[in-house]
Amino acid sequence: MIARGSTTIELTILSDEANEIADALRQKIANHSAFTGFEGQPTIELVQVASRPEDINAESVTVMLADPDLASVIISRCSSLTWCQSTWAGNAPLLNSNKTDYILTGLKGIFGKLMREYVFAYLLSHARNVKAFERNQRGSQPKWEAAKRLPLHGQTLGIVGLGSIGQALIPVAHAFGMNVVGLTRSGKEVEGAKAVFTPDNISTFADASDHVVNLMPDTPSTQNMLSYDFFNALKPHSLFLNAGRGSAVNDDALLQALNGGVFAHAVLDVFRQEPLDKAHPFWHHPNISVTAHTAAESQPSDVADVFLENALRYINGESLIYQFDFKKGY
Amino acid sequence: MIARGSTTIELTILSDEANEIADALRQKIANHSAFTGFEGQPTIELVQVASRPEDINAESVTVMLADPDLASVIISRCSSLTWCQSTWAGNAPLLNSNKTDYILTGLKGIFGKLMREYVFAYLLSHARNVKAFERNQRGSQPKWEAAKRLPLHGQTLGIVGLGSIGQALIPVAHAFGMNVVGLTRSGKEVEGAKAVFTPDNISTFADASDHVVNLMPDTPSTQNMLSYDFFNALKPHSLFLNAGRGSAVNDDALLQALNGGVFAHAVLDVFRQEPLDKAHPFWHHPNISVTAHTAAESQPSDVADVFLENALRYINGESLIYQFDFKKGY
Repeated sequence: MIARGSTTIELTILSDEANEIADALRQKIANHSAFTGFEGQPTIELVQVASRPEDINAESVTVMLADPDLASVIISRCSSLTWCQSTWAGNAPLLNSNKTDYILTGLKGIFGKLMREYVFAYLLSHARNVKAFERNQRGSQPKWEAAKRLPLHGQTLGIVGLGSIGQALIPVAHAFGMNVVGLTRSGKEVEGAKAVFTPDNISTFADASDHVVNLMPDTPSTQNMLSYDFFNALKPHSLFLNAGRGSAVNDDALLQALNGGVFAHAVLDVFRQEPLDKAHPFWHHPNISVTAHTAAESQPSDVADVFLENALRYINGESLIYQFDFKKGY
Repeated sequence: MIARGSTTIELTILSDEANEIADALRQKIANHSAFTGFEGQPTIELVQVASRPEDINAESVTVMLADPDLASVIISRCSSLTWCQSTWAGNAPLLNSNKTDYILTGLKGIFGKLMREYVFAYLLSHARNVKAFERNQRGSQPKWEAAKRLPLHGQTLGIVGLGSIGQALIPVAHAFGMNVVGLTRSGKEVEGAKAVFTPDNISTFADASDHVVNLMPDTPSTQNMLSYDFFNALKPHSLFLNAGRGSAVNDDALLQALNGGVFAHAVLDVFRQEPLDKAHPFWHHPNISVTAHTAAESQPSDVADVFLENALRYINGESLIYQFDFKKGY
């Protein structure tokens, strides 16, 4: 009790959704006895809540809950910062800055349940040819006709990046009778994956897959990893989904393979520049679906939950979960 | 060996896909030693293969593999018939005829894997608002914008009819973090369903569900079962799917609830009259998707597999699987 009472977190929130996150936090803190200190005062105080970096007094920040793109603007001036809980899963803006003398934790454990719905929505729409049935119905004369379908059952889903989000897809793939193969930096075995390949065997990985989803975060080693070798090894019925980071894909290689009929369709959620420029060929390609970086958007309530889980550890002097390693870059 | 050698099946195939089924059968029989008799002759002979009832010599039929709508035309004249393996799951055309002095087996065990892909393709397209993202992309100017989504995670799927097909949906629903409730004639507990209701509690069932799929076969007791009580208890975000039989739905009740905004969207695969008349309001309703009775279409190879599984039992004098009870009507 004394330890807790003496460790009050003075929290700065810097986020596009600062007010929504603050509201969710206040409510959860009030309902949770663990955040009541020695003499009844809350052990977490919201001292700064803002949506713009210029509204933050950087020098006084000790603990921050922040969008990493906004935090990166002031991070070099946060001389008293001990811990920053990010509202994103990927944290390139902060990992690319020079400041590394604080604890950076990411938002994890909540994206898998959203991502698996995104991935299977598009895999199944493709497998069941939902668009063709829609065209049959909405033409000048409705057409009672079976469009071509290709069941997922018995097919193999290739997952690039088998962290917590990638692994969340495996039980769903199995429930549909699919096999799973993976591609990771280490190539280490992952439960539920029939095989895990390394980037130097990327063609073999693509060849073993019917459909591929990329979920790799943005790190120097994943830049342009999905290039000609990869796209040319896909199959005429293959769907390719990118819900990791845009920098992993060589855009020209993707377009060349798609235009040549090497694979069927691309579903792209992330891009080298976001928002995607209105003139970009991806928007205007009939075999590309663009989904505006929405595959696994966190809700303020999710952000509050992860922060509080770590805050309790912080108050109790335990090590935090979802920590980033500045040297490894993930 | 003697028993087998002495029991040769003289098979009649009557189906729209008679030739495709015959080809699949011949290939599988040739590859399966169990179908070689006492002196090397095959124990299954294809004696009649036709797509039209008028091309069949009904009096000589002993064992038939048939589409039930075609078989019903000649069934009363099949005086030597001992066993009919149907190519459909539902068998109203034969169950409604007066002839009951033969074994009727249905096509089962293969539809679940197709049905779960159909149901979740439309559930997830709805949850992820795939159409809105498509509209954002294909408008006169592409729009980088998040369309409203409503995750399946934490929602409840209501399944009307928990036979082998309905039960095949349960592990998939669970993999997405959904709960399952059911509605069956008996209301008996089913593994994986939190609650199973009977038809007299249909409003409570609808109220407990976020989305509902009907998979009930066509029996006298299921006619018009899904009527005003049912549709009016759905929710503004609910998707209703009918992949059972069209006769279960009161079409007017469905349209009235949909037009009144009681529920969000209907996905209809089966209808009172098929093909659905081009003038039918279902074709032209913006919140109804029509899918031409294709949710779980069997392939000739599936039909051959189920027939051969039963043929082996027939030859060995064992009881057949997937038998219909003429008295119960299912």
